[in-house]
Amino acid sequence: MAEKIKKRSVKAGLPPGTLVHIGTQKVGESLIRILDYDEHGVREKNKAAVDECIPFRDTDSVTWIDIEGLQDIKLLGRLGECYRLHPLILEDILNTDQRPKSDDMESYIFVVLKMLDFDPASMEIISEQVSIVFGRNFVISIQEGHEGDLFEPLRERIRSGKGSIRKMGPDYLAYSLLDTIIDHYFLILEKIAERIETLEENVVSDPGPETLRQIHRLKREMIFLRNSAWPLREMIYGLEKSESELIRPATKIFLRDIYDHAVHIIDSIETYREMLSSMLDIYLSSVSNRMNQVMKVLTIIATIFMPLTFLAGVYGMNFKFMPEIGWRWGYPLVLLIMFTVAAVMLYLFKKKKWL
Amino acid sequence: MAEKIKKRSVKAGLPPGTLVHIGTQKVGESLIRILDYDEHGVREKNKAAVDECIPFRDTDSVTWIDIEGLQDIKLLGRLGECYRLHPLILEDILNTDQRPKSDDMESYIFVVLKMLDFDPASMEIISEQVSIVFGRNFVISIQEGHEGDLFEPLRERIRSGKGSIRKMGPDYLAYSLLDTIIDHYFLILEKIAERIETLEENVVSDPGPETLRQIHRLKREMIFLRNSAWPLREMIYGLEKSESELIRPATKIFLRDIYDHAVHIIDSIETYREMLSSMLDIYLSSVSNRMNQVMKVLTIIATIFMPLTFLAGVYGMNFKFMPEIGWRWGYPLVLLIMFTVAAVMLYLFKKKKWL
Amino acid sequence: MAEKIKKRSVKAGLPPGTLVHIGTQKVGESLIRILDYDEHGVREKNKAAVDECIPFRDTDSVTWIDIEGLQDIKLLGRLGECYRLHPLILEDILNTDQRPKSDDMESYIFVVLKMLDFDPASMEIISEQVSIVFGRNFVISIQEGHEGDLFEPLRERIRSGKGSIRKMGPDYLAYSLLDTIIDHYFLILEKIAERIETLEENVVSDPGPETLRQIHRLKREMIFLRNSAWPLREMIYGLEKSESELIRPATKIFLRDIYDHAVHIIDSIETYREMLSSMLDIYLSSVSNRMNQVMKVLTIIATIFMPLTFLAGVYGMNFKFMPEIGWRWGYPLVLLIMFTVAAVMLYLFKKKKWL
Amino acid sequence: MAEKIKKRSVKAGLPPGTLVHIGTQKVGESLIRILDYDEHGVREKNKAAVDECIPFRDTDSVTWIDIEGLQDIKLLGRLGECYRLHPLILEDILNTDQRPKSDDMESYIFVVLKMLDFDPASMEIISEQVSIVFGRNFVISIQEGHEGDLFEPLRERIRSGKGSIRKMGPDYLAYSLLDTIIDHYFLILEKIAERIETLEENVVSDPGPETLRQIHRLKREMIFLRNSAWPLREMIYGLEKSESELIRPATKIFLRDIYDHAVHIIDSIETYREMLSSMLDIYLSSVSNRMNQVMKVLTIIATIFMPLTFLAGVYGMNFKFMPEIGWRWGYPLVLLIMFTVAAVMLYLFKKKKWL
Amino acid sequence: MAEKIKKRSVKAGLPPGTLVHIGTQKVGESLIRILDYDEHGVREKNKAAVDECIPFRDTDSVTWIDIEGLQDIKLLGRLGECYRLHPLILEDILNTDQRPKSDDMESYIFVVLKMLDFDPASMEIISEQVSIVFGRNFVISIQEGHEGDLFEPLRERIRSGKGSIRKMGPDYLAYSLLDTIIDHYFLILEKIAERIETLEENVVSDPGPETLRQIHRLKREMIFLRNSAWPLREMIYGLEKSESELIRPATKIFLRDIYDHAVHIIDSIETYREMLSSMLDIYLSSVSNRMNQVMKVLTIIATIFMPLTFLAGVYGMNFKFMPEIGWRWGYPLVLLIMFTVAAVMLYLFKKKKWL
Repeated sequence: MAEKIKKRSVKAGLPPGTLVHIGTQKVGESLIRILDYDEHGVREKNKAAVDECIPFRDTDSVTWIDIEGLQDIKLLGRLGECYRLHPLILEDILNTDQRPKSDDMESYIFVVLKMLDFDPASMEIISEQVSIVFGRNFVISIQEGHEGDLFEPLRERIRSGKGSIRKMGPDYLAYSLLDTIIDHYFLILEKIAERIETLEENVVSDPGPETLRQIHRLKREMIFLRNSAWPLREMIYGLEKSESELIRPATKIFLRDIYDHAVHIIDSIETYREMLSSMLDIYLSSVSNRMNQVMKVLTIIATIFMPLTFLAGVYGMNFKFMPEIGWRWGYPLVLLIMFTVAAVMLYLFKKKKWL
Repeated sequence: MAEKIKKRSVKAGLPPGTLVHIGTQKVGESLIRILDYDEHGVREKNKAAVDECIPFRDTDSVTWIDIEGLQDIKLLGRLGECYRLHPLILEDILNTDQRPKSDDMESYIFVVLKMLDFDPASMEIISEQVSIVFGRNFVISIQEGHEGDLFEPLRERIRSGKGSIRKMGPDYLAYSLLDTIIDHYFLILEKIAERIETLEENVVSDPGPETLRQIHRLKREMIFLRNSAWPLREMIYGLEKSESELIRPATKIFLRDIYDHAVHIIDSIETYREMLSSMLDIYLSSVSNRMNQVMKVLTIIATIFMPLTFLAGVYGMNFKFMPEIGWRWGYPLVLLIMFTVAAVMLYLFKKKKWL
Repeated sequence: MAEKIKKRSVKAGLPPGTLVHIGTQKVGESLIRILDYDEHGVREKNKAAVDECIPFRDTDSVTWIDIEGLQDIKLLGRLGECYRLHPLILEDILNTDQRPKSDDMESYIFVVLKMLDFDPASMEIISEQVSIVFGRNFVISIQEGHEGDLFEPLRERIRSGKGSIRKMGPDYLAYSLLDTIIDHYFLILEKIAERIETLEENVVSDPGPETLRQIHRLKREMIFLRNSAWPLREMIYGLEKSESELIRPATKIFLRDIYDHAVHIIDSIETYREMLSSMLDIYLSSVSNRMNQVMKVLTIIATIFMPLTFLAGVYGMNFKFMPEIGWRWGYPLVLLIMFTVAAVMLYLFKKKKWL
Repeated sequence: MAEKIKKRSVKAGLPPGTLVHIGTQKVGESLIRILDYDEHGVREKNKAAVDECIPFRDTDSVTWIDIEGLQDIKLLGRLGECYRLHPLILEDILNTDQRPKSDDMESYIFVVLKMLDFDPASMEIISEQVSIVFGRNFVISIQEGHEGDLFEPLRERIRSGKGSIRKMGPDYLAYSLLDTIIDHYFLILEKIAERIETLEENVVSDPGPETLRQIHRLKREMIFLRNSAWPLREMIYGLEKSESELIRPATKIFLRDIYDHAVHIIDSIETYREMLSSMLDIYLSSVSNRMNQVMKVLTIIATIFMPLTFLAGVYGMNFKFMPEIGWRWGYPLVLLIMFTVAAVMLYLFKKKKWL
Repeated sequence: MAEKIKKRSVKAGLPPGTLVHIGTQKVGESLIRILDYDEHGVREKNKAAVDECIPFRDTDSVTWIDIEGLQDIKLLGRLGECYRLHPLILEDILNTDQRPKSDDMESYIFVVLKMLDFDPASMEIISEQVSIVFGRNFVISIQEGHEGDLFEPLRERIRSGKGSIRKMGPDYLAYSLLDTIIDHYFLILEKIAERIETLEENVVSDPGPETLRQIHRLKREMIFLRNSAWPLREMIYGLEKSESELIRPATKIFLRDIYDHAVHIIDSIETYREMLSSMLDIYLSSVSNRMNQVMKVLTIIATIFMPLTFLAGVYGMNFKFMPEIGWRWGYPLVLLIMFTVAAVMLYLFKKKKWL
């Protein structure tokens, strides 16, 4: 996180609307995919050039321009001119440290959110920014990176004409994109739920510094998830309540549905947070309990053997005049006393329930 | 919980409105019960087929279709067509990981909530999803599982014509279903109150790791209950404030009543949560207190016997020239000194209130 | 608390409006007192029968029916018929596990709240439910139990005609009842403030397990008080903002006054809660501090005597060839070394501020 | 605080509006100061009698009646009659355990708040209640006690005619009184800030039970301050947003200014509260850290000397047949072994970073 | 912070609107820079006198008066007269302990906020107050101190005519000033993020009192930052929602953008706060864990050597009649027993997982 914020300061002092890509610079080209469809057919173009989208600008069919990779700043600039996007919107698209939000710009609506995934190597959550702009007859989606292609099933659905997607407008396509991304959040939550459950057993059966480190790590991830999920909810709420004509009433029912999903995600996150807090309490209590056990063992040992050692020490003294030393039964007597002392001590510990 | 979320990810990528049952798949058939009534009489049909509800669709009597079990996806699809339910509603019914909510769909109102029960074996709370759809002349209730039949007393009330239920519309029947479910929450709270009280005595009289584990378990259950109860309140509030014509003013007074119940449930849950937090504090303090006790015992023993043992050690040294060794009263004198040291130590501990 | 909730589950499954007394069943009869007054005079009837209130129903004078004890369910039913009370209201009156609230039923207003008192034996707070129903020309007040009679001074005021009470309507009488009950809350808060202050001195001067138990007990009572006070405030707020014609503007100024009292009560409760939390922190810190002290004593003793005992042990060995043993000044020399070691240790502890 | 609440219960049962002075009864007379002014001149009267204010009642000049001391209940009653104050207002003035608030009574506005000061002896915050009533042409200010006279500079300003105060109405005078009182809060906050800073250095350099006690005391004072400041903000907000004609628009800009001050005060209080919480955490951590240090010293000493003492013990045994005893180099060898053991132990502790 | 509040009390008792500079008095003169521009050209004047701004007062070009240093109270007074600023506004400008806020004064808008920077020496955050007043054709910006000149890039932009700034009004200039300041917050957050990350590694790898002190310090800084950021957000929100004609709709889109930035800043601050809290928990747990380790070492050592030393002590007693002493294999036997005891102990510790 620190890394991204660091990049951001690069912009301090520049006039607003200056296009600078804030985020990990990825080598290679940005990939453009154009998919134009209406009820009757689909026209598709992969690895397209920017200007190829111009002819679709004024048709009535829905044009979906999907861009992967933010390297090519000029490309975005050209696109912005073509669809008359406000410079601040372009700036927001390039700044990958954006808070999820939606902006109603009258002739189009801008939505930005985080797509989450697990890094298979480190098992950490990685997030990628997705910006969606949709207007009367177009949807532009911009993904930060190349990895994976979450939207392929959607593309397939459009090609095959299954479901009602080809009959609906760009607002429905935008909703479908959001739905795809949000459904992916549940995958992340599942994985986390599994890890929490494993951890919960560990805390009870065998708590150690590693358990602590894992609780800490999960807590950090929950903070991160929460930062993505709360504004996500807000954003969808904004869309649902929007008075823009770009969102049809029929689509709002669907937005209401993903709003419920977002609320559900937040509920889960808060629940996990509370469970982690509770686990930390349990952990601390366990450590205290164990220390108590250790202390008891020490005290029992010391309490039994210190008096005995003292007694042995007394009869180890070299005084000339110690009558007991010469007694016939002195030694057995002392052993008996020692045994009695030890027995009484043990009895007392038993009574105090230390044993 | 993890299990349910896991199932959910199965849906990622499918078009919205695809009917997939998310939850524990139960073998066997779904059970349909039809109860049609008006002021004058009751018509009942158990183990009905779906299509048997069609004739009741356009009558003025109230038709209650009660379905147990979510296995039969086709059945639901057919029912959805018959009563023109939105695909998203059907999806919500099948997805048993739903957050309690109510949706006003104009021609009908959809309500989903959790029915709670105790698992007699593990004494854990189990929850079952109940969906209620009611319109101008029908109520459809869908329960996730077969176990128990909470609604039988209600059915009996309708059959016998006791109370005013037969004179009221489907909104009153829907209210009665909600009332039955919510009344059951109090049963759960009672059981939990009992367990908390037992635990509270334990914490004071004999705290141990088991107490800790129980507090943790109850805390988890409170988190779970809370997640069910808060949206429940919201949901009933939504119904009460609804401007739909499907809910008559006379029924709203009753909804207001269960709203009060829901608030009462939340109050109790929050109270228990606070009591559990307070108990954890007490537990931790008790453990600290006990460790203090143990430490004091250890310190007293060590402080008394270490100097004495040292003294004994001194006169156990084998130096040739140790005048005290040869004294007539050396031994009794040393014993006296030892006794004095011990007495002084004990006196000091007494003064410090460690004894 | 657990007890009451337990009773509540008895009702699960019964139709709404069924009259069942939820609470501790008290033996004996319910006591009815009727007081009818206007500016010109007062008519009083103690130990009245229910039907005796009928003649007053349609007069213009104010009729105050005060009922003590909830045993007689039929009596309430009869009263309900006479004044046309909604079955849910009667249910609420009988259910003594009610959350404070007010309901505007158009022809009358229903108010339910808790009357608090200290149990003189156990010094625990006991609460009794009071329901107040007032309409155009009547006030019905229903107390759960017989103990004490908080309302006698009020009755005396009416009889004597002091103050303006006889000139005002039933809304003012209802206000006076509320005022009497709420004034009693301050008495409870006083007692608690005293106990908190005593406890606070204890925490500083002599903390022990008993202190902890008391903090815990007070915390529980604060949770309980809070549960009564917050809805109380809400309830009075509801009355003050009510648009019902049954509450005259002149009375609203007085309601505003007890609203301020309720806010004051809540402020005090929250303050006490924070003070108790702070005291628990202090308690825990004190325990930690003390353990630190104990540990230091132990460590000082061990650090001084362990090396000394070891030294004595060395010269207690029986080796044939130990030159020091035979030295003339061996013994004094060893004693000197021992003394030096002890002195150095003490100096180090002094420097570390452990002494 | 407990004391004041205790006094309050004296009133339980009395009819509302009964004038009883709740608070510490102060001996001596109440002091009345009358200051009547308009743009042209000032008429002043110290140690006036109540009835002397009557002639000013119907003039157009602003009359400021300043009363110090609440002993003389009759005086207040007479004043109440003269300016037609509601009995509940008089009751609120006398009850010095009032929550800051403002009441708009149409023909006049009533404001009550706390004036804070430091008790020079105990360095504790003391609070004094100030009530302000202002109408079309008068301001009545009532202070609980005699000590100090915060308002003298204001009086001087009126006399000299400096600033615009003589040209403005009673609302501006009331504002000036509030401004004077609120400015005094900053003085209190300063002193507390100083004490917190001193404490902060202590916690780091030399934490002890006294530090703990001071944190606790400051926490209590912050709770107290907060209870005064939050309703203060509310009260000023109420005045600023008031639709009463008694507050001119020109004055509202000034009220907005003291509203900002009140928010600033609350911000500071919350900041100090957080800093105190953070300091308590640091304190607890320091104590833990220290105990850790103590434990390490103990463990190091024990771990080094216990094996050595044992070794010495072994060669102190009196067995007849112990070959080592007779060896020529037995003694030096054992000493060497002992030295080696100690050295290894120290090396291990070094490696574990305990030293 | 304490210092500033202290200064504030200087004002207690003075009439409102009295100009007193609250803050660290800086020696030297205030520096005035005048920049007047419209689409066609730029007129610039550095180290100007106050009265030089009068000629620009009634032109249509935008006049930016930038003042550095608050020493010269008269200067401000003159400026206030010239642009008819309300005395309370001038007071707010001089009081550098101001909470960020915006005031709409109809003919101009007043904005005050904090400019943050790192003190290069102590690495602590220092804050400087910036006040901005803008009207129909002017912007006045007043900075507390001389250090650095954040606004130079902006001035350069105006001179060069790059971007659209010369075509926009004073509201856009005011926005640009705000944008410059807020962009600087990200720089601060970056530095803090770096420090938190370093600290996080320390907590895991090598926690010590220094770690604790750093956590505490960062916590304090977060409290401070939060106090600046929350009202900042509120302030920008107020500007964006303002109905003043001084803010053009085109500028509001830009205000919305910095509003998003402010929300982002708050999000980051809250995240860091949570991470610090979590780190403190980890720290405390680590300390507990370590103490547990230390205790175990102590207990193991004591438990092994105490019984052995006792055994050695027994055979060190000088009784005349101790048969074992004379045995041929007595010594080896005892050594064997000792070895066995030690081995059993070690085995038990292994089993308990202490080793």
